[in-house]
Amino acid sequence: MRRIGIVARRDRAEAREVTRGLVQWLTAHGREVVLDTETAGALGLPGVTIAEREALPGKVDLIVVLGGDGTLLSVARLVDGLGVPILGVNLGGLGFLTATTLEALFPTLEAVLRGEYTAEERLVLVAALMRGGAQVAEHLALNDVVVAKGALGRLIDLDVRADGKPMTAYRADGLIIATPTGSTAYNLSAAGPILFPTMDAVVLTPIAPHTLSNRPIVVPGAQRIEVALRIEQEVMLTMDGQVGVPLREGDVVEVQTADARIRLVRFPQKNFFSVLRTKLKWGER
Amino acid sequence: MRRIGIVARRDRAEAREVTRGLVQWLTAHGREVVLDTETAGALGLPGVTIAEREALPGKVDLIVVLGGDGTLLSVARLVDGLGVPILGVNLGGLGFLTATTLEALFPTLEAVLRGEYTAEERLVLVAALMRGGAQVAEHLALNDVVVAKGALGRLIDLDVRADGKPMTAYRADGLIIATPTGSTAYNLSAAGPILFPTMDAVVLTPIAPHTLSNRPIVVPGAQRIEVALRIEQEVMLTMDGQVGVPLREGDVVEVQTADARIRLVRFPQKNFFSVLRTKLKWGER
Amino acid sequence: MRRIGIVARRDRAEAREVTRGLVQWLTAHGREVVLDTETAGALGLPGVTIAEREALPGKVDLIVVLGGDGTLLSVARLVDGLGVPILGVNLGGLGFLTATTLEALFPTLEAVLRGEYTAEERLVLVAALMRGGAQVAEHLALNDVVVAKGALGRLIDLDVRADGKPMTAYRADGLIIATPTGSTAYNLSAAGPILFPTMDAVVLTPIAPHTLSNRPIVVPGAQRIEVALRIEQEVMLTMDGQVGVPLREGDVVEVQTADARIRLVRFPQKNFFSVLRTKLKWGER
Amino acid sequence: MRRIGIVARRDRAEAREVTRGLVQWLTAHGREVVLDTETAGALGLPGVTIAEREALPGKVDLIVVLGGDGTLLSVARLVDGLGVPILGVNLGGLGFLTATTLEALFPTLEAVLRGEYTAEERLVLVAALMRGGAQVAEHLALNDVVVAKGALGRLIDLDVRADGKPMTAYRADGLIIATPTGSTAYNLSAAGPILFPTMDAVVLTPIAPHTLSNRPIVVPGAQRIEVALRIEQEVMLTMDGQVGVPLREGDVVEVQTADARIRLVRFPQKNFFSVLRTKLKWGER
Repeated sequence: MRRIGIVARRDRAEAREVTRGLVQWLTAHGREVVLDTETAGALGLPGVTIAEREALPGKVDLIVVLGGDGTLLSVARLVDGLGVPILGVNLGGLGFLTATTLEALFPTLEAVLRGEYTAEERLVLVAALMRGGAQVAEHLALNDVVVAKGALGRLIDLDVRADGKPMTAYRADGLIIATPTGSTAYNLSAAGPILFPTMDAVVLTPIAPHTLSNRPIVVPGAQRIEVALRIEQEVMLTMDGQVGVPLREGDVVEVQTADARIRLVRFPQKNFFSVLRTKLKWGER
Repeated sequence: MRRIGIVARRDRAEAREVTRGLVQWLTAHGREVVLDTETAGALGLPGVTIAEREALPGKVDLIVVLGGDGTLLSVARLVDGLGVPILGVNLGGLGFLTATTLEALFPTLEAVLRGEYTAEERLVLVAALMRGGAQVAEHLALNDVVVAKGALGRLIDLDVRADGKPMTAYRADGLIIATPTGSTAYNLSAAGPILFPTMDAVVLTPIAPHTLSNRPIVVPGAQRIEVALRIEQEVMLTMDGQVGVPLREGDVVEVQTADARIRLVRFPQKNFFSVLRTKLKWGER
Repeated sequence: MRRIGIVARRDRAEAREVTRGLVQWLTAHGREVVLDTETAGALGLPGVTIAEREALPGKVDLIVVLGGDGTLLSVARLVDGLGVPILGVNLGGLGFLTATTLEALFPTLEAVLRGEYTAEERLVLVAALMRGGAQVAEHLALNDVVVAKGALGRLIDLDVRADGKPMTAYRADGLIIATPTGSTAYNLSAAGPILFPTMDAVVLTPIAPHTLSNRPIVVPGAQRIEVALRIEQEVMLTMDGQVGVPLREGDVVEVQTADARIRLVRFPQKNFFSVLRTKLKWGER
Repeated sequence: MRRIGIVARRDRAEAREVTRGLVQWLTAHGREVVLDTETAGALGLPGVTIAEREALPGKVDLIVVLGGDGTLLSVARLVDGLGVPILGVNLGGLGFLTATTLEALFPTLEAVLRGEYTAEERLVLVAALMRGGAQVAEHLALNDVVVAKGALGRLIDLDVRADGKPMTAYRADGLIIATPTGSTAYNLSAAGPILFPTMDAVVLTPIAPHTLSNRPIVVPGAQRIEVALRIEQEVMLTMDGQVGVPLREGDVVEVQTADARIRLVRFPQKNFFSVLRTKLKWGER
């Protein structure tokens, strides 16, 4: 690992300080550092390469993300297909995606540079927006692809097909199509199940469904899901809750798993169930 | 019952035909008929009084609503305080609020005109929007008052007080404050409980809450609920899913039960539980 | 308040020590102390009246319960109709029913003896077991009356009537009929709603219902609920999870609210919502 | 397919008549028929081989099950490892496991004998009961392995490990470990998600969990799940709701997927989603 990229959350002052210290530490350890233009900002760090955020993953062997699960999600959607491992450093509490906290940053990095880590592969979704028979947009999502109503509208009507065959129709506030990674995010709030992170599966969870028997359904990752909007309404397609595209009547959103997977740096001592127990207070009496 | 008002759903052609027949029948039975301007529209019916929809309830002894639960909701929000009974006639299937179907319209009306019916009183909510210490709007709701996020945003932060004391904070897609009448509508989709229709109670049900222990809570109708918006986001206040007001940071929505109640015409043979069994297929094997 | 009863949880050693100290303190404050036979046990305290637990409520002006919510439930079922206030002292953490903790015991008692407290009235259920047309047993419950299957059986078939009229049929593991007090106990685990504690209402929540639309329903406290067992199975009627009676085919359990209510000592600073926030971690981020 | 086994539900009179007709039809079509002793019973059919139910799967090329999902479950637990396809014929309505109805029996059989069918492989669970370090029993389950409390007890305490590592602790009425096949049975009543039938996954769903954040979790089929009973209580281990074993304190139930899978005869026109839509009334308005 020669070249290390850093992406930091912009709206936290401490992120700047940490970035400064991290650049120093990496340079002192003989690594080349690449910052994206926004992270570099007014830091004025000499001897550092600067790249557009979109181009950064192609120039480095590891990306250190300083922020929370949200910042990591935004980076993950860029990295697809390149296999660059991502090390998430949580500036606040405990995240599902981040592998370490600020306090443990340097010991953790030493371990990673020595190769003492696991790169856990996570499934990524590709959502293609089909309009009038043609694909008009394509987006990645590490957590979820959501089709949901606006603030005023109530129910939306969605027709869902799996591998080209009719699956079901929903009348609901919306539909969440989540990866195992995203199963502990929005999907969980909407009463969806938790999926073990390395599963090759996708869960469809309706938001406030009108039909009370419309329970969440888990399907193999290989199934191609098509969500068709039946009638004109204010409806939005969102990826990881961060990217939004308004939909029109007749639009079809095709959701599939990407060929490539995201690689997250993980350590054995912080396994999935221990995070669940802490975040969800499982096992507390 | 001398003067009968008629309000019909506009977007159904059959409503016009039924209105025509109903006016004829009522006139033949010696009643004076009042139509609202929209229902009257291009019907060109002689000998019929026409009034603005808002003014209609003040001019009649009974309002016949031709439509579904939605049309009845829109009328109910006008009638508050006047005690005029409302007879809902469902043009489609079975409604929770409507008392009869098209097939049974005339026998039903005969019974009503003979006084053979019950006027079931239903609690109504008043939502006052407080901005900068002053009340800037007031709305009625028969089903529910909802504070919810727009299509792109995810969680909103709401502080809720009951009778001036802190109750809880929600991070959720939104919050439904429903009457017993509204408990079988949006509240049910969001996993809220059913409330027996004549109860003096209100249920608070979060939509897709981030905190999994944020279960629906039922409080006495007398409690004054205040919902405060913590930070700026795209958030909407809606009444019965029909009237919408955008909210700003710092806005407080005060929800109370109105002094007056709506009076719905009911018949003993179609009781609440029989409607539940039919609509929710309770007891099916 | 001249005569104070004490009932302590038997299986906790510390309860004995606390009882000893409490008797001393009350005697020093000029009160007469009554212990039930089990609490008195081998304590060998002079100058203390001893009574059967069933008789104790009739001999005192206040009952101090040393234990948790469970001990308080077992006392509450004895006190019905007498209006004797109950002060619950939690030996462990925080309870829904207990008013104070061990640390605050003596200051709290001083306040109570000075009359500085509220006696919150809580609705109690009476469950009558009807067999072959005759009542064969009657039990009280402060939390809930539950009709549920045994360990091996799966679904049971229950017919439920409200005020003599058909309400619904359940195929489920069982049915919980909970008071507002009990709404935060078993009912909550079975996805039932929370009811504000002073409400005059009862909630019916099925356990693992086969019909997915069988949602919890809240009815007025005045409604008489009848639960009939359709076919022979291993089924148990339980009160507060503490008293159990096996049911037979054809048995009907009639559940009503008692005329009298339980009076729990409460203090304004520990209100219902603050307990909810602590126990359910509401409002945590 | 030379030898065809028949197993019929005992408590339905029509099953006998159908068996008689089926034996005739199969013999006329040149097949050898094997009945289990119970199905054969007093039918007195000449030219038919009779075998113990446990031995029957080893003697035939296809098993026809006349009954419902329950009868098929009881047969499936015998067939493990032999790869004999099972054709379920539903005597009543529509089943999740049965492939055809009585009306379509003979045309269906003709298709099957011509080889025009798919044998859908379904994952089976093996539950081993470990007591004092030794395995004292082993059972198969096609739907689910359930550890649950008796009728009187309330919460049970379960420690769950996955592949030897701590997963979570449950305080609940019980725990359902369901296959994709069983996901639409008891698991669905307990608010578990639906799993697409061919997935290599298992879902753990607590029944009425005390900890509200204890949501269902889906894990890979390869994970070995251990459920340990913490304290003495009336607790039962059940397989498919049909076989029950009482548990003792310290018992550990080890659940794994079997190496072999059950083969169910399926036809393309009756796919999983069409059954869901019919059984759960998905897509109804």
